[in-house]
Amino acid sequence: MTWKEKVHEVIYEADTTTGKAFDVVLIVVILASLTLVVLDSVESISLKYHNLFVTLEWIITIFFTIEYILRIISIKQPKNYIFSFYGIVDFLSTIPLYISLIFAGSGALLSLRALRLLRVFRVFKLARYTGAGSVVSVALKRSMPKILIFLYSVIIVSFVSGTIMYLVEGPENGYTSIPIGIYWTIVTLTTVGFGDIHPVTPLGQFIATLIMLLGYGIIAVPTGIVTAEMTKENFSRNTQVCYNCGESQHKDNAEFCHKCGYPLNKSKEDIET
Amino acid sequence: MTWKEKVHEVIYEADTTTGKAFDVVLIVVILASLTLVVLDSVESISLKYHNLFVTLEWIITIFFTIEYILRIISIKQPKNYIFSFYGIVDFLSTIPLYISLIFAGSGALLSLRALRLLRVFRVFKLARYTGAGSVVSVALKRSMPKILIFLYSVIIVSFVSGTIMYLVEGPENGYTSIPIGIYWTIVTLTTVGFGDIHPVTPLGQFIATLIMLLGYGIIAVPTGIVTAEMTKENFSRNTQVCYNCGESQHKDNAEFCHKCGYPLNKSKEDIET
Amino acid sequence: MTWKEKVHEVIYEADTTTGKAFDVVLIVVILASLTLVVLDSVESISLKYHNLFVTLEWIITIFFTIEYILRIISIKQPKNYIFSFYGIVDFLSTIPLYISLIFAGSGALLSLRALRLLRVFRVFKLARYTGAGSVVSVALKRSMPKILIFLYSVIIVSFVSGTIMYLVEGPENGYTSIPIGIYWTIVTLTTVGFGDIHPVTPLGQFIATLIMLLGYGIIAVPTGIVTAEMTKENFSRNTQVCYNCGESQHKDNAEFCHKCGYPLNKSKEDIET
Amino acid sequence: MTWKEKVHEVIYEADTTTGKAFDVVLIVVILASLTLVVLDSVESISLKYHNLFVTLEWIITIFFTIEYILRIISIKQPKNYIFSFYGIVDFLSTIPLYISLIFAGSGALLSLRALRLLRVFRVFKLARYTGAGSVVSVALKRSMPKILIFLYSVIIVSFVSGTIMYLVEGPENGYTSIPIGIYWTIVTLTTVGFGDIHPVTPLGQFIATLIMLLGYGIIAVPTGIVTAEMTKENFSRNTQVCYNCGESQHKDNAEFCHKCGYPLNKSKEDIET
Repeated sequence: MTWKEKVHEVIYEADTTTGKAFDVVLIVVILASLTLVVLDSVESISLKYHNLFVTLEWIITIFFTIEYILRIISIKQPKNYIFSFYGIVDFLSTIPLYISLIFAGSGALLSLRALRLLRVFRVFKLARYTGAGSVVSVALKRSMPKILIFLYSVIIVSFVSGTIMYLVEGPENGYTSIPIGIYWTIVTLTTVGFGDIHPVTPLGQFIATLIMLLGYGIIAVPTGIVTAEMTKENFSRNTQVCYNCGESQHKDNAEFCHKCGYPLNKSKEDIET
Repeated sequence: MTWKEKVHEVIYEADTTTGKAFDVVLIVVILASLTLVVLDSVESISLKYHNLFVTLEWIITIFFTIEYILRIISIKQPKNYIFSFYGIVDFLSTIPLYISLIFAGSGALLSLRALRLLRVFRVFKLARYTGAGSVVSVALKRSMPKILIFLYSVIIVSFVSGTIMYLVEGPENGYTSIPIGIYWTIVTLTTVGFGDIHPVTPLGQFIATLIMLLGYGIIAVPTGIVTAEMTKENFSRNTQVCYNCGESQHKDNAEFCHKCGYPLNKSKEDIET
Repeated sequence: MTWKEKVHEVIYEADTTTGKAFDVVLIVVILASLTLVVLDSVESISLKYHNLFVTLEWIITIFFTIEYILRIISIKQPKNYIFSFYGIVDFLSTIPLYISLIFAGSGALLSLRALRLLRVFRVFKLARYTGAGSVVSVALKRSMPKILIFLYSVIIVSFVSGTIMYLVEGPENGYTSIPIGIYWTIVTLTTVGFGDIHPVTPLGQFIATLIMLLGYGIIAVPTGIVTAEMTKENFSRNTQVCYNCGESQHKDNAEFCHKCGYPLNKSKEDIET
Repeated sequence: MTWKEKVHEVIYEADTTTGKAFDVVLIVVILASLTLVVLDSVESISLKYHNLFVTLEWIITIFFTIEYILRIISIKQPKNYIFSFYGIVDFLSTIPLYISLIFAGSGALLSLRALRLLRVFRVFKLARYTGAGSVVSVALKRSMPKILIFLYSVIIVSFVSGTIMYLVEGPENGYTSIPIGIYWTIVTLTTVGFGDIHPVTPLGQFIATLIMLLGYGIIAVPTGIVTAEMTKENFSRNTQVCYNCGESQHKDNAEFCHKCGYPLNKSKEDIET
């Protein structure tokens, strides 16, 4: 195994001790870098510790630069990495500080640094190993088509209601355009209710009442969809079929058929011999 | 097949290629027309592109006019279409631009053009084909009587609470009338909470607390209703049909029909022999 | 049957045609009377139609007076009715107009007239006959102990959080006392969020974030309780036990056992003979 | 039994009549003490009854002091109690009034007295006996890993969305820093919606719309998790225990143990014969 292969295993894989350790270090550095971005956005903190933040920012940028170079070197087809989603994210989230040396423009700098947020999604790769999240994500994926139809209906309702509220309340009460009316409807339908815009005329308040009751009623729909999907999970994850009696609805941890008592892990051949 | 019959098949049916294509074109034009209405309502956009919008509006109106005339010509009983729900919607949403040539009144014009929104519901006819929405709509239809009783209770509670809040808080704190009190109760009970009106006196705040806890507790009811209905769907996974009486909703572990007592695993041939 | 007995049957019972008709008339008059109260509370309407309202109010009051007298006359033990809950409500909601003839005090008058609201609950007696609401109310009754424990926990959390927010944010940010802090917590925990009071300090906003996530998480609890109870309903309403094989989990509309095919309505004696 | 043992049984245990009575008295005094703290925080009440409150505060403090001393005396290993969680809470919540005799500082006094809130959690020990809360807490405990993954996703989303809103809306519209953006996202995602900060630019309102729809959609996830867990409870209605291996979670229609394949209806005697 060459040193390139070793580096590849550490950076790209997670099945060795050093590979896992590298992933953990990477997550810590990403989180530290994000904390820097967050704290630097708070004016009172930024004024005091700006110099410290710049120093730390440079350390992190150099770490990311080394990581980026190693990723390119250790892979057989560097193009595959460079033009992949994470390759571009890694490049764009590392480069801004170098650019800021040449051009001074803190606004543009900040907006590119925010791309580091996307690196967080690498963390999700770890979550995949835990397996605990799989039940949730399977249930969500299966419910997706139903939820999309639900969202489609919500958008149609928002459209109709947004136009009506624009006509009823009008610009003088804050409903300055139909998009604002749609925005208000979604704020109301989802029971968020900021209150930045709210009906003032009696008719508008009456329509708002109907929309709220509708929103209160239909919140049950996505809940029902996901719950039904999750309850299904409860008893159908075991796909084993008993070779003796053909019973198929076994408990997840079943080793014997609950109907005839035959061992579930015995195949057809076992029976014949 | 005469040309009228051909036109009828294209406009009214959706089981031929051209019929489906026409439906898609219609939806695109409706959505484009709605986008126009929406964008024209935003003052900053309207000031710049008003002339373009007027031109596009005329093109769409002429398209809808041709569609309307073809619908009348190609049907055997034109009256059935003209005085149907969609017939009236089509007429009212096409006419405003022609009227605006004679009388100038942009407000009234806009309000009639908004009727085009109702045309969107034609899109739902397409959704019917997808079949994906059917589980949701079946569960919703079955839950409807229970949800209506629930809404009825909510309205009674709103009435009582609205009057109490009107008496407790009074006009000086924004509760200017009992309808406003009812409006506030529904805003609170559905957990929307705009904050345009809110209790100020300690007693009012205490009553508001009770209403909020009530609302938080009863949100479970519509959710429970719909979920129970959807889970029910889950259980009818047994797709066996009784060969004797035709009953199809059997329990998963059923071996005999619960309606006529006939064995479920016996096929038609078994009966005859 | 004396005339008193006839009046009793019409007023107190609902199993004859005239009895039902009387109930419907009563509900209409109560709703009309409530509509009067509601409309009279809207200042702009009240100024115009006050005289009409007073006249209608007198007609309704006289109707209620006659009903009240008939209820007393037609019952064997008038005391039972007069000092019952509805007896007192009927008396208090009828008397205010007569009192206003002697003393002039519209505020007190209004507050007593609002008692008519309680008469609406008589309408619920009708709802009882429909039977459609019974599944909902049975599930709610069964979930009650669990929901009470849930509410108890919510109140404890509100108490703790209300005190913390009072200490953290203090009177200068609107949290003028611990009860106000508790009120704010419940507004937040139930996801109502009026925004009349909201955290201003970073620490307060951080604690608010935790409370919101908690509220978002625990809304699942009452929902889960009611849903589980309602799903239970789905398959356990049929309490029949098969006399042949002892199977007990039958479908609601089952006439034969799904396990052995034996008729469910046959008793033990039928088998022996 | 010495008097120390008797005191121990009364104070620490709850299985005797006097033990239970003591617990009830303790809860009443704690609640009374908390009511005092709450009422004293309301300025208008505090001004009037401050002297009464101080007197009652002293009576309660002396009661707590006696309880604290008895708890130390009656236990075999006083250290175990003194340095336990409740031991420290008891000490810190009793001491402030004594300190206030020496140093005058009402603010610090109040903040320590608030520790008495923690004593309320002793009340939960009583709830444990009721058993009614156990189903809820078992379902909650089992759902915990899934809910944590859910909360983790919510936090990632809040982070991303908070940064985007900070960049899009900027400090001039109230989004003064990324933490404020995260705070706003959680306010919105949980459908609380205070309205203290809200999007003003069209792009910000569009993103807010997406976040609200997301929040509305994902509220189904914790609900689904808890409900599925609670419904699971429903399914383990089969209380049979396998006489061979002791497994107890059998399917409703199980005839053989799914773990060892032993017939479930055979009793111990059957095995021996």
